Amino acid sequence: MTTFGESHGVGVGVIIDGCPPRLAVDLDEVQAELDRRRPGQSRLVTQRDESDTIEVLSGIVDGVTLGTPIAMMVRNKDQNSGAYDHLKDVYRPSHADYTYDAKYGLRDHRGGGRSSVRESVARVAAGAVARQLLHAVAGVEVTGWVESVHTITGDIDGAKVTRAQVEATPTRCPDPEAAAAMIDAIEQARHQGNSLGGVVRVVAKNVPAGWGEPVFDKLDADLAKAMLSIPATKGFEIGSGFGGTTMTGLEHNDPFVPGPDGTPVTTSNNSGGVQGGISNGAVIDLRVAFKPTATISSSQQTVTTSGEPTELAAHGRHDPCVLPRAVPIVESMTCLVLADHLLRQQVNNIC
Amino acid sequence: MTTFGESHGVGVGVIIDGCPPRLAVDLDEVQAELDRRRPGQSRLVTQRDESDTIEVLSGIVDGVTLGTPIAMMVRNKDQNSGAYDHLKDVYRPSHADYTYDAKYGLRDHRGGGRSSVRESVARVAAGAVARQLLHAVAGVEVTGWVESVHTITGDIDGAKVTRAQVEATPTRCPDPEAAAAMIDAIEQARHQGNSLGGVVRVVAKNVPAGWGEPVFDKLDADLAKAMLSIPATKGFEIGSGFGGTTMTGLEHNDPFVPGPDGTPVTTSNNSGGVQGGISNGAVIDLRVAFKPTATISSSQQTVTTSGEPTELAAHGRHDPCVLPRAVPIVESMTCLVLADHLLRQQVNNIC
Amino acid sequence: MTTFGESHGVGVGVIIDGCPPRLAVDLDEVQAELDRRRPGQSRLVTQRDESDTIEVLSGIVDGVTLGTPIAMMVRNKDQNSGAYDHLKDVYRPSHADYTYDAKYGLRDHRGGGRSSVRESVARVAAGAVARQLLHAVAGVEVTGWVESVHTITGDIDGAKVTRAQVEATPTRCPDPEAAAAMIDAIEQARHQGNSLGGVVRVVAKNVPAGWGEPVFDKLDADLAKAMLSIPATKGFEIGSGFGGTTMTGLEHNDPFVPGPDGTPVTTSNNSGGVQGGISNGAVIDLRVAFKPTATISSSQQTVTTSGEPTELAAHGRHDPCVLPRAVPIVESMTCLVLADHLLRQQVNNIC
Amino acid sequence: MTTFGESHGVGVGVIIDGCPPRLAVDLDEVQAELDRRRPGQSRLVTQRDESDTIEVLSGIVDGVTLGTPIAMMVRNKDQNSGAYDHLKDVYRPSHADYTYDAKYGLRDHRGGGRSSVRESVARVAAGAVARQLLHAVAGVEVTGWVESVHTITGDIDGAKVTRAQVEATPTRCPDPEAAAAMIDAIEQARHQGNSLGGVVRVVAKNVPAGWGEPVFDKLDADLAKAMLSIPATKGFEIGSGFGGTTMTGLEHNDPFVPGPDGTPVTTSNNSGGVQGGISNGAVIDLRVAFKPTATISSSQQTVTTSGEPTELAAHGRHDPCVLPRAVPIVESMTCLVLADHLLRQQVNNIC
Repeated sequence: MTTFGESHGVGVGVIIDGCPPRLAVDLDEVQAELDRRRPGQSRLVTQRDESDTIEVLSGIVDGVTLGTPIAMMVRNKDQNSGAYDHLKDVYRPSHADYTYDAKYGLRDHRGGGRSSVRESVARVAAGAVARQLLHAVAGVEVTGWVESVHTITGDIDGAKVTRAQVEATPTRCPDPEAAAAMIDAIEQARHQGNSLGGVVRVVAKNVPAGWGEPVFDKLDADLAKAMLSIPATKGFEIGSGFGGTTMTGLEHNDPFVPGPDGTPVTTSNNSGGVQGGISNGAVIDLRVAFKPTATISSSQQTVTTSGEPTELAAHGRHDPCVLPRAVPIVESMTCLVLADHLLRQQVNNIC
Repeated sequence: MTTFGESHGVGVGVIIDGCPPRLAVDLDEVQAELDRRRPGQSRLVTQRDESDTIEVLSGIVDGVTLGTPIAMMVRNKDQNSGAYDHLKDVYRPSHADYTYDAKYGLRDHRGGGRSSVRESVARVAAGAVARQLLHAVAGVEVTGWVESVHTITGDIDGAKVTRAQVEATPTRCPDPEAAAAMIDAIEQARHQGNSLGGVVRVVAKNVPAGWGEPVFDKLDADLAKAMLSIPATKGFEIGSGFGGTTMTGLEHNDPFVPGPDGTPVTTSNNSGGVQGGISNGAVIDLRVAFKPTATISSSQQTVTTSGEPTELAAHGRHDPCVLPRAVPIVESMTCLVLADHLLRQQVNNIC
Repeated sequence: MTTFGESHGVGVGVIIDGCPPRLAVDLDEVQAELDRRRPGQSRLVTQRDESDTIEVLSGIVDGVTLGTPIAMMVRNKDQNSGAYDHLKDVYRPSHADYTYDAKYGLRDHRGGGRSSVRESVARVAAGAVARQLLHAVAGVEVTGWVESVHTITGDIDGAKVTRAQVEATPTRCPDPEAAAAMIDAIEQARHQGNSLGGVVRVVAKNVPAGWGEPVFDKLDADLAKAMLSIPATKGFEIGSGFGGTTMTGLEHNDPFVPGPDGTPVTTSNNSGGVQGGISNGAVIDLRVAFKPTATISSSQQTVTTSGEPTELAAHGRHDPCVLPRAVPIVESMTCLVLADHLLRQQVNNIC
Repeated sequence: MTTFGESHGVGVGVIIDGCPPRLAVDLDEVQAELDRRRPGQSRLVTQRDESDTIEVLSGIVDGVTLGTPIAMMVRNKDQNSGAYDHLKDVYRPSHADYTYDAKYGLRDHRGGGRSSVRESVARVAAGAVARQLLHAVAGVEVTGWVESVHTITGDIDGAKVTRAQVEATPTRCPDPEAAAAMIDAIEQARHQGNSLGGVVRVVAKNVPAGWGEPVFDKLDADLAKAMLSIPATKGFEIGSGFGGTTMTGLEHNDPFVPGPDGTPVTTSNNSGGVQGGISNGAVIDLRVAFKPTATISSSQQTVTTSGEPTELAAHGRHDPCVLPRAVPIVESMTCLVLADHLLRQQVNNIC
């Protein structure tokens, strides 16, 4: 996957190289995933007005992949670049303004350029194709939800949660009570010119044992990289995560018992479905920490591009809490990593 | 970096491709890092007797890099492969035995093959070269320590901790009181045929602003992958990590002020030194979660390779707690990622 | 560089990843290179009517690169896909029809899909950016021309040939007498429903000594791959090429003498500017063999997709000789390889 | 494949990453290929005395691949580094001495370091494993021979030539008359302190249709890169090569007819087994041009490392003609490229 596009350029796109031929791709499902990510879908998220309509530029003919590169693009519409003029000469705290200048010696200040969450359009479009590949070939199901916003944590049984439950509220938290509290907290944060973070959890079911690599490209290592490549993420856990460090080996080890078809299954899942970097047939179970949105309208201490101290209260449209929109992004990155390892595993069956 | 070698094969080695020429490499320092990782260095770790003497096979002549591939190798000596015969037909819980079989259709049962922590010899040797490159070119200093073992957490000021403090105890926890408690806990775990996990923290000082990439190869994404590629890791945090999800944007954002030389510096470091995937000049600050060692001598429920339920009490030498030996490994992976981004950043200065 | 697009899809595009920031890009020059490649520019080439207007989708703002991915696209206009209906169930000899079916199990029969020379739009667009980078940073000049068509070979002094001389005739052969004979031969081939091949030669001046890699990614190895990746190529030579195999070492070796600035220069250039995979400061000098166009309107023996013998006389627009249009493509691939090695060499200067 | 090692360092080695598990590897065959490449095997080649005994460091247990990295190494024995002292301060013409200095700012003058043909030990060892994989999975047979030395060209029917015929003479030219003339020419060259070049041809039989990639990683592009990465190569041809440029399309196109099993076969093979970058089931047929050895004992004009003109007559052991030893190297690179595309093709069969 290679992506391109700035927040306030022509649009955002992706090339998927290496998708197998003869995969039936339902473009309506691709569009549906983009709709889950798109701004303006509820009052909880940024009000930028983008339809985010996918355009397939190559690689899919008559609804079937050709095996050659799949290019897809979404054009930007509601750019309102003028709204960013006040950011041209100032570095927003905890944003990528200063680091882009430090790296490149210049930057596109309008909407954050490549650092904008708008870049994730490309991830979700590609992830939607990967999801269909995983489902068609291996029956894999990837489901994510908002586990917490700020200090509010949902009470959710990951083994049973369904996509319908997740989509039932604009928070994408399938615990109705927690969801209601999250809505209040997010609205209050917006009202106060503040922002909130939280945790997204994703499970992948039906991943067969044997996907992954033993050393550097471990399945969990690739998942960790994929998740930390999403803007605003600060942490990654698989299975027991940091909590597992306070267990003993006897408590943490997942006992094997014979499964229904004779292959080993575990009676617990502290491993999160990965052992030694390779899937063990249990549910892949991961969590991602999102910091509170950096762009807030409250006044903050910062410096200008010429090094003078200043105060900044950002205008422009932004999410007071990215968590609801982050769910399809985290799911998409999970699908992309799993699809990659599905393909890599094919070479191990030939001798 | 490409590595090879099994726990009970001829040895473990690494090829470093792309190290710049004319770097003076102190091989004694490389050996010193390997000595920090090696088994048998204290009663807290596995008693396998390995001198882990580095042999340089290519790429360094008269103590200077040639620019061509650097190959280094450590031969295995104390293999005692017979000690693993009882594991040939059984899957150790939460180890890579079953997943290797699922992936490859066969495995080297002696000592875990490639999944053994012995593979990290290659990482530490390569990391020691990367460390010298980083120091020579940019003055970067990478320091790690054990922050917690099981429920015991040290009280450590990351801004001030020194290598000497870390090395002062076999736990590599620079809080003497916590270190003493950790020793007791680890010895008790060994006595009980049990094992403990914990958290390693690493800081990298003097990393200049501008290292990293904006989208998929973000500096923190590459660090996350590097850390999750280490055996027994279950989580990664940079800066505020999961704790940061309970802060508001106003609390979490790191205010900029003019620094001593006029470039912006932050008055807090919730970002952990990375903003938008690119270093901002602050200290790189990360944490890695290690689960309790999977191999324990207590009896556990599992299955044989032919699918029959059985009980297993593992023999063989193993660490009741990998944390002390994990410090040089986490440091090494940090150095390797930073060195990679140091090199990648060179192309941005030519126009 | 990653490309996408089929001959008869929406269009053809490219993402350039890793172009340094702050490069001034003259888009008129990019368009000018595309105009050299485009169909319909003279009566010697295919009459498909494409304006091939470049659209920049990302990565360049106000005429300057941002350092982030540059995406460019050319939309297809004159597709006339119906003209290919007669090819749906038959394999054109020496084309990619059968091999695509063998590889992918399906293909886009309209205009050859990805195997069409239309894909080279993406190469030329990217190559034009690489050319500007090479010129801005190192003063490199890349010039190509048609050396031969069929049995007609131009008499050309590579050390002196200019772009203006090349562009003076639609053949792009800077020997006027040979050019006239080539025009006659190409027109005769078209008249006879036949086609002709030939040789393109490219020289790159001002490439400094030191670009390339010592083993697998030798500069000449990368050039060879780049050239053989162009459709219809069958051979590659650097410097003396196959002719050099009939020289002795004494004849073939390029003697060194002190150059004007004291660095060594060679008094001959059988090496073609590359020694041991690395540039030596002399002119990079390469030749590429193009077979006669596979698609001809004469009747040929072949089989249907269901395996029945048949005769095929291809309709549709095609070039009776690709050589004139091949010149900007070969130049572009040369620029892309050189730019890649310019960037790779940056890391060798830091210690 | 990643290789390491200098001509006069500890040894030369290779890591093969991605070889499928459960492949039975006959190490005697690997050694036999190394013996074909090794110096001192006949009076026609360099008299350096190396047994080139392969040592497997990892990845193969009990004669079967584990799926994890295969590391193999050959130690250098007869280094005689002192023989190169006279080359320390002088640049040998048409060798890599000057370009290494230009690139790296230093070099290992003993025996050419990484630029030595000794590096090809690693290629041949890896190629021997790839050959066994290709044979086991697809029945592929790769056979090479010396087609010409200087102006002497053998008369050889590539469709019928056997390994036994090739190995019957130390020249590896299976035309006995030409072989005798080559022996005379090579001995005369050695006697005169001169050297000779020539052409190696390789055919690969039983490659199924469908291996390769459509654009940049075309099968012939990867073969071209592999061949030009071998020291002393100056040209590459597939199928008709440069000779094909003087044919017309009608003459050059390979007509399809129904094959024995109903799939299309061609009645000629100007394509050399590759169409559109993908194998078509015909014999892969390629030729590689080798220049005369650069290191000769006759006196030549050159410069010192400090830029003074000088004369050089190289001592040290070298091949007056590398062609006989080049055959296993070209075969090995062919096997490595084909094995890579065998593995890549696996992903296209899953939908």
